[in-house]
Amino acid sequence: MTPTRKWFTAAAALAAALLLASAQAADPLPSWNDGAAKRSIIDFVGRVTRKGTPDYVAPAARIATFDNDGTLWAEQPMYFQFLFAMDRVKAMAPQHPEWKDREPFASILKGDMKGALAGGERALMEIVMTTHAGMTTEEFDKTVRDWAATARHPRFNRPYTEMVYQPMLEVLAYLRANGFKTFIVSGGGIEFMRPWVEKAYGIPPEQVVGSSIRTKLEMRDGGPVLVRLPEVDFIDDKAGKPVGINSRIGRRPIASFGNSDGDREMLEWTQAGLGPRLMVLVRHDDDKREWAYGAESKIGTFSDALAAEAKKDGWTVASMKNDWRKVFAFEK
Amino acid sequence: MTPTRKWFTAAAALAAALLLASAQAADPLPSWNDGAAKRSIIDFVGRVTRKGTPDYVAPAARIATFDNDGTLWAEQPMYFQFLFAMDRVKAMAPQHPEWKDREPFASILKGDMKGALAGGERALMEIVMTTHAGMTTEEFDKTVRDWAATARHPRFNRPYTEMVYQPMLEVLAYLRANGFKTFIVSGGGIEFMRPWVEKAYGIPPEQVVGSSIRTKLEMRDGGPVLVRLPEVDFIDDKAGKPVGINSRIGRRPIASFGNSDGDREMLEWTQAGLGPRLMVLVRHDDDKREWAYGAESKIGTFSDALAAEAKKDGWTVASMKNDWRKVFAFEK
Repeated sequence: MTPTRKWFTAAAALAAALLLASAQAADPLPSWNDGAAKRSIIDFVGRVTRKGTPDYVAPAARIATFDNDGTLWAEQPMYFQFLFAMDRVKAMAPQHPEWKDREPFASILKGDMKGALAGGERALMEIVMTTHAGMTTEEFDKTVRDWAATARHPRFNRPYTEMVYQPMLEVLAYLRANGFKTFIVSGGGIEFMRPWVEKAYGIPPEQVVGSSIRTKLEMRDGGPVLVRLPEVDFIDDKAGKPVGINSRIGRRPIASFGNSDGDREMLEWTQAGLGPRLMVLVRHDDDKREWAYGAESKIGTFSDALAAEAKKDGWTVASMKNDWRKVFAFEK
Repeated sequence: MTPTRKWFTAAAALAAALLLASAQAADPLPSWNDGAAKRSIIDFVGRVTRKGTPDYVAPAARIATFDNDGTLWAEQPMYFQFLFAMDRVKAMAPQHPEWKDREPFASILKGDMKGALAGGERALMEIVMTTHAGMTTEEFDKTVRDWAATARHPRFNRPYTEMVYQPMLEVLAYLRANGFKTFIVSGGGIEFMRPWVEKAYGIPPEQVVGSSIRTKLEMRDGGPVLVRLPEVDFIDDKAGKPVGINSRIGRRPIASFGNSDGDREMLEWTQAGLGPRLMVLVRHDDDKREWAYGAESKIGTFSDALAAEAKKDGWTVASMKNDWRKVFAFEK
């Protein structure tokens, strides 16, 4: 090789390396494999942020809503809020000796989940209300914070707040960097989520829509407190999601992310607006790095009807197995 | 005068003029007269934004809540939303010939407000539900927009959206310029306010907390709509205000602005938090430029007990007559 040729080859290699590095640095979704799902997200953001084009959306109208369980963090072996309730029953048991002989508590204390849930809806509500009501909002907030700081996921032995999906954190950050306001719209309890979502997702308390129980203002020790009552206020699931979005946000999202039948109405509501829209469903099909479940699962049901609707309406279906380079940040 | 002396005098005059202009430019509340009320607002903002001091509050926690009727816009001769309902009854009357003989509608159509309200709470609810329910959220939104664009205040002959208080617009802008997030927390209907508050106050729909009726998701012409039901969902007044703040915002405000007994609990809730707080009550004591009313008024009641509590707890009471240089922007 002539010295000139050598120099040229070295320069070309350097240029190629620089180009690659710059392309990698510019990739807003590095935990996503290249493919249709990733492309649909990036294309959508490009379309709505390009000024002077018909698809341009003003920043104020760039509302994106995210389901939480199974979309932003895991939901197996069961909803984490239910695992929280189980832990609370155990922690509260010393003050309730009568629970030893009373269902559903007796079964929970014996570690028999099946027995605990044998009482159906009524047993479930009793567990939820016993553990989520009867205290002030500040007391409940502290309980959730303490639990989030200490409890560990049974399979991964990690704090639950680390069970969040790295690719979705990148989507949240990418949307916000492009002027979007990101909201959680979850069937989970609003006051169960607020204590930790700001740190976990960068979503402030006022951008969390969820299910709730009623509260009541009382004076205690000369000061006002809000007491959590054992009465359902709102269930933010299925047809409740558009209701919650309208009531709490007051604008229709232009992008929505879910993972199950519970998110269908939210995605339909998003799609029904005028202009460019992005509807994304996360598919749990990775039993190695996470879990594989779908139509048959009681938690995070992804029915065949949902799959058919997604296909017909051009919704993005993101396969954990194929579209995600990484599931959790703690993976090597 | 020697030429040097002359030059010096001219330069001094120029310097003084520049200083004055700069002081005026720096005044964030030009429609407020100098006095204790204005000072309390500016001092508070200075305290919570000074980094490295014990009173410093991080921007995310700078939440300010504002009542609407009587605090941000006028509420006489009666709540504007009620005047909207009256206008709606008249507009809907041709489709309801039976109203000619049915109260409270018959009285409204005759312009007899006293007769219309003779039926008390039940008549009021019937008026509200007839005019606010039974349509989709999008239809109601359009009705409110059309009304706001055309209806005029009976005394000032101005669109209602011009009946907003210039000094309060300055407070809103001043707080936002200092990193605050500004929310409306009003007894008024949330979907009555959202169509116009963004333009009037710079407050986006997702930062409006208010009273609401229930909605229900339905499919119409193959697409989802939300139908407004004649059922109360939430009353955001008095003890309901802290409930609404907790449910919708999820953080305690550090500053709250109101004008009546309906705001007492909101201001108490604000004050009960740790750290520096600002509680402000607007006093309607200017019957020339606006109205003078207080303890005796059914609308915007400012009881003696509220006045006593404000004094005892060091809340700011802003007198329209003395503290406000200007009430409405349209004043000369």
